[in-house]
Amino acid sequence: MALLTRIGGPRDLDRLGPEQLDRLAAEIRSFLVDAVAKTGGHLGPNLGVVELTIALHRVFDSPKDKILFDTGHQAYVHKLLTGRQDFSRLRAKDGLSGYPSRAESEHDVIENSHASTVLGWADGLAKANEVRGRKDHVVAVIGDGALTGGMAWEALNNIAAAKDRPLVIVVNDNERSYAPTIGGLANHLATLRTTDGYERFLARGKDLLERTPVLGKPLYETLHGAKKGLKDFIAPQGMFEDLGLKYVGPIDGHDIEALESALQRAKRFNGPVLVHCLTEKGRGYKPAEQHEGDRFHGIGVIHPDTGLPVSSGGTSWTSVFGEEMVKLGRERDDIVAITAAMMQPVGLQPFAKAFPDRVYDVGIAEQHAAVSAAGLATGGLHPVFAVYATFLNRAFDQVLMDVALHKCGVTFVLDRAGVTGDDGASHNGMWDMSILQVVPGLRIAAPRDADQVRAQLREAVEVKDAPTVVRYSKGTVGPAVEAVGRIGGMDVLRRPAEGTVRPDVLLVSVGALAPMCLEIADLLDKQGISTTVVDPRWVKPVDEALPGLAAEHRVVVTVEDNGRVGGVGSAIAQALRDAGVDLPLRDFGIPARFLDHASRKEIMAEIGLTAPDIARQVTGLVAKLDGRLDDDATASDAEPVRD
Amino acid sequence: MALLTRIGGPRDLDRLGPEQLDRLAAEIRSFLVDAVAKTGGHLGPNLGVVELTIALHRVFDSPKDKILFDTGHQAYVHKLLTGRQDFSRLRAKDGLSGYPSRAESEHDVIENSHASTVLGWADGLAKANEVRGRKDHVVAVIGDGALTGGMAWEALNNIAAAKDRPLVIVVNDNERSYAPTIGGLANHLATLRTTDGYERFLARGKDLLERTPVLGKPLYETLHGAKKGLKDFIAPQGMFEDLGLKYVGPIDGHDIEALESALQRAKRFNGPVLVHCLTEKGRGYKPAEQHEGDRFHGIGVIHPDTGLPVSSGGTSWTSVFGEEMVKLGRERDDIVAITAAMMQPVGLQPFAKAFPDRVYDVGIAEQHAAVSAAGLATGGLHPVFAVYATFLNRAFDQVLMDVALHKCGVTFVLDRAGVTGDDGASHNGMWDMSILQVVPGLRIAAPRDADQVRAQLREAVEVKDAPTVVRYSKGTVGPAVEAVGRIGGMDVLRRPAEGTVRPDVLLVSVGALAPMCLEIADLLDKQGISTTVVDPRWVKPVDEALPGLAAEHRVVVTVEDNGRVGGVGSAIAQALRDAGVDLPLRDFGIPARFLDHASRKEIMAEIGLTAPDIARQVTGLVAKLDGRLDDDATASDAEPVRD
Repeated sequence: MALLTRIGGPRDLDRLGPEQLDRLAAEIRSFLVDAVAKTGGHLGPNLGVVELTIALHRVFDSPKDKILFDTGHQAYVHKLLTGRQDFSRLRAKDGLSGYPSRAESEHDVIENSHASTVLGWADGLAKANEVRGRKDHVVAVIGDGALTGGMAWEALNNIAAAKDRPLVIVVNDNERSYAPTIGGLANHLATLRTTDGYERFLARGKDLLERTPVLGKPLYETLHGAKKGLKDFIAPQGMFEDLGLKYVGPIDGHDIEALESALQRAKRFNGPVLVHCLTEKGRGYKPAEQHEGDRFHGIGVIHPDTGLPVSSGGTSWTSVFGEEMVKLGRERDDIVAITAAMMQPVGLQPFAKAFPDRVYDVGIAEQHAAVSAAGLATGGLHPVFAVYATFLNRAFDQVLMDVALHKCGVTFVLDRAGVTGDDGASHNGMWDMSILQVVPGLRIAAPRDADQVRAQLREAVEVKDAPTVVRYSKGTVGPAVEAVGRIGGMDVLRRPAEGTVRPDVLLVSVGALAPMCLEIADLLDKQGISTTVVDPRWVKPVDEALPGLAAEHRVVVTVEDNGRVGGVGSAIAQALRDAGVDLPLRDFGIPARFLDHASRKEIMAEIGLTAPDIARQVTGLVAKLDGRLDDDATASDAEPVRD
Repeated sequence: MALLTRIGGPRDLDRLGPEQLDRLAAEIRSFLVDAVAKTGGHLGPNLGVVELTIALHRVFDSPKDKILFDTGHQAYVHKLLTGRQDFSRLRAKDGLSGYPSRAESEHDVIENSHASTVLGWADGLAKANEVRGRKDHVVAVIGDGALTGGMAWEALNNIAAAKDRPLVIVVNDNERSYAPTIGGLANHLATLRTTDGYERFLARGKDLLERTPVLGKPLYETLHGAKKGLKDFIAPQGMFEDLGLKYVGPIDGHDIEALESALQRAKRFNGPVLVHCLTEKGRGYKPAEQHEGDRFHGIGVIHPDTGLPVSSGGTSWTSVFGEEMVKLGRERDDIVAITAAMMQPVGLQPFAKAFPDRVYDVGIAEQHAAVSAAGLATGGLHPVFAVYATFLNRAFDQVLMDVALHKCGVTFVLDRAGVTGDDGASHNGMWDMSILQVVPGLRIAAPRDADQVRAQLREAVEVKDAPTVVRYSKGTVGPAVEAVGRIGGMDVLRRPAEGTVRPDVLLVSVGALAPMCLEIADLLDKQGISTTVVDPRWVKPVDEALPGLAAEHRVVVTVEDNGRVGGVGSAIAQALRDAGVDLPLRDFGIPARFLDHASRKEIMAEIGLTAPDIARQVTGLVAKLDGRLDDDATASDAEPVRD
């Protein structure tokens, strides 16, 4: 790492010659494989952008010029070149974020990990430059996969219209997001890639010419200068030029000199320009290059030599869903599945293999996933759209206005719901059970274990006239939590000791927090506080039996792995008010703030979502009702942890 | 109306000859002007699609074939041709909806009035046909304006990829949504329109040839048959063909025979095909054709001969905002404005006139409006995005992840918030104060009158490190409601009689409902119930002084023109719980269901959002606390009106 350790900032790249740059690229690859093998992280995408990132930082002057990364998990190289080379705690608490982070560096701008946003940011920054008379450059790096998202189109439409507002779009075309990029655009990019490979011809020509001593270089320059006219004739530039964007490419994204040359031209262009770079995900690391799936898109801890995972872990929530979908697919030929470019991560690969004609990868296009699901349902099928909980936010309007208003039987399966942790603020699935509360007719299931995932998925796909949601956590599913009874549609997980006349607490447990809620009940028991624990299973609508059951207790406590604001606790509180049951209620969940990256366990402790924390607060509340504490002391004691 | 009245359904069109079809078109135009002048409605868009709709229903066999209209306000002609000719109560309670409505007719499919959804619906329906082995046709009619929305792109990308899945896209290109369509796409459509006008050349040629008796017709047919090869040579088909869509056009959208010919070809194509039709908004009605603004996009009651409005109405909430924006623009050169294709309707026209370089029409692209606003704010400006409340749902993820996570000072001005009524379910602005509650740091202002709009807009644009929202109603702003005091940041609108020791009710009034809340207090007064009325002004975050003030009362009542679920009442209830103030609370607002179209007043009565309804329920609750009623009777009495 002789070269890399000497790079303290982007300007240190200026003094390196071509051979040194290639060596630096090799050092970076080696560093990435070693570092990410130890911590886990996004390996494949970063191996693909080593040369591109070096070229960007040599041609543009960050942070004066703004270099913006879409999605952001491909910013590791950018971190290495901007003074961040301690990857030992990557994605861990107080270590480097796995995404750009403004707290880490003035070179970072966008830290939203949701895809397809960068062109909109770039358009706004370029407009601001124009209004304020600034001449800095704005460069947006976006993958071909992210171009399938609607936001990218909306931005392209705006950017292309302003012919004299400078903005450089770099398309990092590796032909895939997680999976190969789909759709008409992918076909068009393929055409551009192969039409005649003009840039590559130039690059090859350059090699040849440079080997011809005296005349070669000037000849190349001349040829290069004449390119525009020649190129337009040879290779029509397609839809980007139709829209009004200058198109430069395709460029070999692993040839630093070709990249710099293209980026220099783009920088001088003084209008909107798109540089089409061809890169290879996982480049230079055999296990990634040879991986038939996602080319090591995101990995856990691995053996760096083999690329094999260090530990296999238990059964995941995702795989329980994936297996049940195959069974359902066999039983019902009206069931179809939808993914937004994440077939494998959401567990739909087995279904896709079994029923290739009944699965749709729509690209990074959650809006389209939801609205086309409305069409599929209206056409007589039952679509299941599996998606990370946080990404469903993109389709809120479509869930409400297309699926729910039209009473379509569509099932949304929300994976990675709740605190996910190491991917940072924008990956936590902490919004779904709040915003979906407002959707008329929609039903939400929060299964507590693998059996319930299977059972509730089956209940969900039986609903024909309304959207259903099944939401579960990230990672390994815990052991089964057996019910000891049922009231209405709710599973009773624990009853107070026999003979208790009016138990103190009704504890409503949501989803995967059931074991924690049972632990809370144990802790309360030790304080002499009697508790009923129920799992409503379906948290929306609030079970009709819940207000009556609540009225048999002195207080109601709700615990959910979701934002407190407007969540399940709020909905239950409203249901109690509507039934005239005016009992004290305390709702525990995730506070209304963005969470820094850390492990799930660390975050749960920090926000007070642990059994001891909750038991302590409930104890305080019951003591207040007993008159054992004066009001003032209890008011603050009973307050959930917030900040 | 000799012909129109004989059309009971689409198949009645089959027996009409060319001359009769032209007469029918004229009758329909005349009918539309007369009818919509009396009721108000969307006139301009429907005048533009008379011939197109006739041709669609002659070529395709609805309801077996699915004819889908994007946005849906251009479906009046479709209604006339599918057995719905009583327009006397258009958009009024129990009359015809202003949009397609499945309750009205089996010929209607999509009733979501949000733009750019139709291609996604069509993709879903076409996929369902494929899976189920059905050969019916799916036809999606979309305006050029709606193509600027990201959903349209996501759908095009998917549709284009399936080469042998039949789907007909009809682009109704009138060069505008409300305002002229913007962006690179508009420029490209303009190129297609003018490249060589091949279809129009054919049409003109046809006229000429048909006047040549014996040989003309066969000659035309031959020319026509040869067209594909000829056309590809003469007029490159641009980005749609780049994506993989067959392109047919441009077609004169007012020439029924040319339309039918193009649609027949599209119907036979057996793959995804786009028919590009050129239409004129407001066609055939002079006041609309000559209108420099929106060509009578949506109108109130007018004099049919002159097109002038029958009554002028008072000052609108919109115009109060629009005027204040001009003042702010003069005072601060960092303020910029954004609209999603609705410059005039949201009141930004005066600002645009005064500061043409500081206003951005981004197309029907709410996502881009929000994300580019994040970029503008990061670039040092303060953007104000004015939008109908219901349309902000499209940008929820961007408000959360781009604006709020990045702590951008962006102001969202939500017009038409609350019950809007006559446009039906999807136009009510009843979701914003619920879903935005979850956004960390975001602040929401709900001004109660014109003075407060001005004051709170000014407070909003002072906030530099968080998103702010100012939301107000549709229509005429009421008289000023003066405060009689202030507690924390809240205006006190009414105090209980002097000497009241512990008043009964704290009534929290949100926004434009202040006069209703004062009326409720008067009614309660007559029952001997003492009431404090406060307007929090900023409803998010909950004012810090509110729990303390609440604790001085016996019950808390909240009234908002927003969905009850997760709304302001819910947020206040949670704030009280968090402060350990366990008082009975009742939250009044819009129930969690979709509202049928009717006048605002009718809907408010139906959902129980009236002073007498609320006063009656609060009286019941206080009586219960007084022990004047037994528990059972009160529980149901205190329950808000729901269904």
